Amino acid sequence: MGQSKLITIALLLMSGILLSGCLNTDDTDDSFSTADFDKGSGDTGTTLAYNSDTLYQVSTINALLEGVYDGDTSLRTLKGHGDFGIGTFNALDGEMIMLDGEIYQVKDDGIAYLSNDSMTTPFAAVTFFEGDETLLINETMSKEELEEHLENMMPNRNIMYAVKITGTFDHMKTRSVPRQEQPYPKLVEVTKNQPTFEFTSVQGTIVGFWLPAYMNGVNVPEYHLHFITDGMDAGGHILEYDISEGTVEIDRTYDFYLSLPRDESFMDADLEKDNSSELEMVEK
Amino acid sequence: MGQSKLITIALLLMSGILLSGCLNTDDTDDSFSTADFDKGSGDTGTTLAYNSDTLYQVSTINALLEGVYDGDTSLRTLKGHGDFGIGTFNALDGEMIMLDGEIYQVKDDGIAYLSNDSMTTPFAAVTFFEGDETLLINETMSKEELEEHLENMMPNRNIMYAVKITGTFDHMKTRSVPRQEQPYPKLVEVTKNQPTFEFTSVQGTIVGFWLPAYMNGVNVPEYHLHFITDGMDAGGHILEYDISEGTVEIDRTYDFYLSLPRDESFMDADLEKDNSSELEMVEK
Repeated sequence: MGQSKLITIALLLMSGILLSGCLNTDDTDDSFSTADFDKGSGDTGTTLAYNSDTLYQVSTINALLEGVYDGDTSLRTLKGHGDFGIGTFNALDGEMIMLDGEIYQVKDDGIAYLSNDSMTTPFAAVTFFEGDETLLINETMSKEELEEHLENMMPNRNIMYAVKITGTFDHMKTRSVPRQEQPYPKLVEVTKNQPTFEFTSVQGTIVGFWLPAYMNGVNVPEYHLHFITDGMDAGGHILEYDISEGTVEIDRTYDFYLSLPRDESFMDADLEKDNSSELEMVEK
Repeated sequence: MGQSKLITIALLLMSGILLSGCLNTDDTDDSFSTADFDKGSGDTGTTLAYNSDTLYQVSTINALLEGVYDGDTSLRTLKGHGDFGIGTFNALDGEMIMLDGEIYQVKDDGIAYLSNDSMTTPFAAVTFFEGDETLLINETMSKEELEEHLENMMPNRNIMYAVKITGTFDHMKTRSVPRQEQPYPKLVEVTKNQPTFEFTSVQGTIVGFWLPAYMNGVNVPEYHLHFITDGMDAGGHILEYDISEGTVEIDRTYDFYLSLPRDESFMDADLEKDNSSELEMVEK
């Protein structure tokens, strides 16, 4: 119902391929270690355990489900805690993809816009991505088949993993969410009419996390993945995909930092109920 | 059944009162700001949000419920992240109370021992306590009545609170847990035979946290409180109490840092099921 505003973004993809030559200077794996943002002095060896393998999160998924769409954390702050991650923007204005230190905003037109640092986020999770395990994919497989490989790469299901998959996708289906007006509806209402986007033979990167079951309420248990094209021009929250070739990397993550918003809308939200079924609906 | 090894620690309390004169030099509210441990350079203003209002936690309550009783975090490390908190020790060897920067171990004899920094913990939560709200109590009230006052002090139920109650308790009932041997039984098995301790007209401090419902699985939702006498010689995990007079303080806490263990017992634990009913049993 109402969810099938399908767009095939062929022109965008072509411009992405044309642009990818010049964009690549910032887009190779080698650039990870030279990213020009501050990892913070906590990295340089104090009694603080804060380190680059920390997943830093703003607010909780339960608050987002309840319609807490404004936050007080700037993208500048977010960049101090990671170069890789996902989230959304104030007023639920699209899907966030942070890759190689840049933050892209996939609005409800399916197009990825480069964000600016003064924008704020009501919900995001980021880390400094450093792949611990790598798997090369050279045959076509479905999302479910790839997930089986991914879970074989994970030494256990009790820690957090950042997941990065760079490659060619025979098929990729994403969605975004339209900017909301006050009073904000619940997320499950918004996603009933979510615009979806389909890509074929697209090159790009899957960015996101696999989190343990005990994170329920705080974040999304298991997979929460967003996508952005190699040309950094389209993407969204992933619904389905098939991959034909690519590189899968996971970053084992043992530390988690949760920063709760201090604004009234978070304080006033009803975060006491179990939202698992609503979460299932909005993620699919 | 089997849970009623009741001990009235009158002699201990008397020695506590006698000793309290010399211990008091480190035990007044004024000493908070002069605690002699490093809060870490993250406090001195970097892009890191790590601050003294962070609740720092080692491992998850679900892992403890599953019998993950050994950890790799030293008490020295814990002291770098707080001066106030609760937890347990390797091999589940007693209840932890951290107060004014010192860590006490209430073993299964009900006695509080000063710990040493090289000991390790499989589960603990600490913060730098700075009271944001204070309430004076000058009439006798039950645990339930005091909790009503406490919840009126909390601006909302969506953030974390450190809770400190210093005063005289007409009645205080605590428990501890005996040191375990490998292979470790589940916590719900251990607490079936927990030694309990009853105090009357005892002066001391309640140390602990009130956490929001979404922390389920990660820590104990709502109250998790331990007790230590003014003489720092007895205490435990609180089961029941009545207070006759005292000072209640809460410390609003917006930031949470979770440090997961890297040892095999944590990795191998089954943390995927909902342990809420077992948690209810072990906390009461």
